[in-house]
Amino acid sequence: MQTLYVELGDRRYPIFIGSDLNPQTLLEPYIQGKQVMIVSNSTVAPLYLEHYQTAIEALGKQVATCILPDGEKYKDIQHLNLIFDALLEAGFNRDCTVLALGGGVIGDMAGFASACFQRGVYFIQVPTTLLSQVDSSVGGKTGINHPLGKNMIGAFQQPQVVLADMSQLKTLPDRELSAGLAEVIKYALLGDIEFLDWLEQHMDALVARDPVLLAEAVYRSCAHKARIVANDEKEQGERALLNLGHTFGHAIESYLGYGEWLHGEAVATGMVMAADLSHRMGWISADDVERTKRIISRAQLPIVCPKIPLDDFLGFMAHDKKVLNGQLRLVLMQRLGQAIITREFDPELMKQSILAHQAA
Amino acid sequence: MQTLYVELGDRRYPIFIGSDLNPQTLLEPYIQGKQVMIVSNSTVAPLYLEHYQTAIEALGKQVATCILPDGEKYKDIQHLNLIFDALLEAGFNRDCTVLALGGGVIGDMAGFASACFQRGVYFIQVPTTLLSQVDSSVGGKTGINHPLGKNMIGAFQQPQVVLADMSQLKTLPDRELSAGLAEVIKYALLGDIEFLDWLEQHMDALVARDPVLLAEAVYRSCAHKARIVANDEKEQGERALLNLGHTFGHAIESYLGYGEWLHGEAVATGMVMAADLSHRMGWISADDVERTKRIISRAQLPIVCPKIPLDDFLGFMAHDKKVLNGQLRLVLMQRLGQAIITREFDPELMKQSILAHQAA
Ligand SMILES: NC(=O)c1ccc[n+]([C@@H]2O[C@H](COP(=O)([O-])OP(=O)(O)OC[C@H]3O[C@@H](n4cnc5c(N)ncnc54)[C@H](O)[C@@H]3O)[C@@H](O)[C@H]2O)c1
Ligand SMILES: NC(=O)c1ccc[n+]([C@@H]2O[C@H](COP(=O)([O-])OP(=O)(O)OC[C@H]3O[C@@H](n4cnc5c(N)ncnc54)[C@H](O)[C@@H]3O)[C@@H](O)[C@H]2O)c1
Ligand SMILES: [Zn+2]
Ligand SMILES: [Zn+2]
Repeated sequence: MQTLYVELGDRRYPIFIGSDLNPQTLLEPYIQGKQVMIVSNSTVAPLYLEHYQTAIEALGKQVATCILPDGEKYKDIQHLNLIFDALLEAGFNRDCTVLALGGGVIGDMAGFASACFQRGVYFIQVPTTLLSQVDSSVGGKTGINHPLGKNMIGAFQQPQVVLADMSQLKTLPDRELSAGLAEVIKYALLGDIEFLDWLEQHMDALVARDPVLLAEAVYRSCAHKARIVANDEKEQGERALLNLGHTFGHAIESYLGYGEWLHGEAVATGMVMAADLSHRMGWISADDVERTKRIISRAQLPIVCPKIPLDDFLGFMAHDKKVLNGQLRLVLMQRLGQAIITREFDPELMKQSILAHQAA
Repeated sequence: MQTLYVELGDRRYPIFIGSDLNPQTLLEPYIQGKQVMIVSNSTVAPLYLEHYQTAIEALGKQVATCILPDGEKYKDIQHLNLIFDALLEAGFNRDCTVLALGGGVIGDMAGFASACFQRGVYFIQVPTTLLSQVDSSVGGKTGINHPLGKNMIGAFQQPQVVLADMSQLKTLPDRELSAGLAEVIKYALLGDIEFLDWLEQHMDALVARDPVLLAEAVYRSCAHKARIVANDEKEQGERALLNLGHTFGHAIESYLGYGEWLHGEAVATGMVMAADLSHRMGWISADDVERTKRIISRAQLPIVCPKIPLDDFLGFMAHDKKVLNGQLRLVLMQRLGQAIITREFDPELMKQSILAHQAA
């Protein structure tokens, strides 16, 4: 087991990363109060709820559960309210702990509920998808969607502790595993060329879910995100690097309609477009682009997207949050393994990069 | 005009207190971004919305409005969501400001919405009831009710600035004015005997809504709350003093059903009971109790409550939040003008104090 401490604001918390972790021992020092609400969904609960519930009850805690339907489309205020209902029906007070057992959807909803219930109770994350382990474990963002925008309503809420157990990734659908690998690759491409070497060495084993290598990938990814977030809590500068591939990806997701492609899949193709544009700008070599495409393909991720009319694609890019005062800024690669955020790119070349990575 | 700065956490903000305040001049330095959402209700908006909207538009801001129905019963998640709808329909971004124009209900809802929208935007309070001017202007508590409990869901959110304009109290119903005076008297009784002298001198003029004296009362009240809250942000000790009269009052409100008596009315009678028990404990004199009753009566507030079976009364008191590990703690008066929080009181005497202040 590896332990990574996230140093953030006035709070510091550990992420425990490994296989067959013992929740009873690991959680004991971090559960405040006597009451624990486990929030999970209808897919994850049948697989892992009992394991955690038994462990926490053995610590003498009163455990209640709230099982939500599975899906991003339920990440809304109505289903958030079901968590409040469960907390109040169980008679929980302001000393209680909310534990998220599931992927990023459950983590975001349970975390937000814990931020608001009684104006803030304790929060523990047990992310069960690779994506939530490498992304939502760090940064403290929680929230829900609104019909007019994703993640529009939320709070910053740091957990007491995160338990990332690789054994639970065994049951994850292949596409979800790959979507998580897209974010892992992102950390390598944006800031760690040695990590890219390492991924090239181990990608097949990662796709085969080798738990030791997965744990190492999660550790390195979380360490990168923790460093970047700590340097830039207010999201002014460096943190924007985490959006490598995301502005292109956002256009793909938006055009296809959310849910058609997974976020990680869209980001994967988006990173290819960003690499390609970086090459057209003369910053990275054709070989670097090939390396980018190859590692993404080996993670079972798409390197081209369906045909999308260019105007639509550009329109959706312009609506992305990275647009500042109407000027599109992109995360591109100055060198392979070293991203920058810039508005100094040729829009014509950008169009070429988009068109070059669409299905015929 | 008087200005009181609230020093809290990493943020400091002014409360401007006076009559016929000029919102354009006063708000200008505090409005961040270009977009302002004014949240108000169907009673207050016809009276004061135009005044503020015009002033803020004159600052070159894009103003949108969200007018909620009037009433505590709409302080729920469904109506909170209407504020999010309005923000997103107006296309507001994370640089926007939410301005609450109304009493405590609107302040709590708009403040909470501003805490959650895009994980936190700017917030300005224009409290238009005496109660919200002397209570919710300081402390940063925001939130909504849940069918199973009041103020169960919320956030701490400090405003950029508070504008407390006495001219707007002219339209306030008499009972609402008195309910605000109950909290004003509370500050005197719990910690400022000179303020009590002052209130005794000016109570008739306050009830007649003399704007200069009201402003002075608001200033002194906010200063007290600001000092207490700053000393005890986490609500462990001193802050509990602010609950003088509230545990008894909570029982009255709960038994009668919320809405029957105003909160301030219940607190008024609760303070009489607390004074009476303090006397029975031998801490304050019979004269002190008389002084307490007299100032409360002069504020047009009740000093006895309707007949409530003792067991019900005690049951509701036990459900109050001030109960710690099953032990009831009460805010009582060690001396007139000096409250303490204690579990060292005789329960039999407490029963007598309750029974002595019920209608026959
Ligand atoms: N808070 C943050 O910083 C942050 C960062 C990135 C993404 N997110 C959010 O996370 C969400 C996406 O997260 P996600 O990709 O984990 O999606 P998800 O939570 O929807 O999980 C994907 C699917 O896998 C299932 N699943 C989860 N764990 C499983 C397991 N161990 N075995 C079998 N099936 C399992 C889920 O039930 C779901 O069907 C989005 O809502 C996104 O906005 C948040
Ligand atoms: N956040 C805090 O620290 C805090 C502190 C105390 C109370 N509160 C909350 O505040 C609420 C009570 O606040 P309140 O007493 O202001 O009640 P309120 O907001 O319901 O206002 C009382 C009534 O007066 C009307 N009104 C408001 N201003 C008016 C004006 N200038 N002229 C005419 N009518 C006017 C309102 O429309 C309403 O009908 C409760 O929900 C309580 O939980 C919050
Ligand atoms: Zn992402
Ligand atoms: Zn009160």
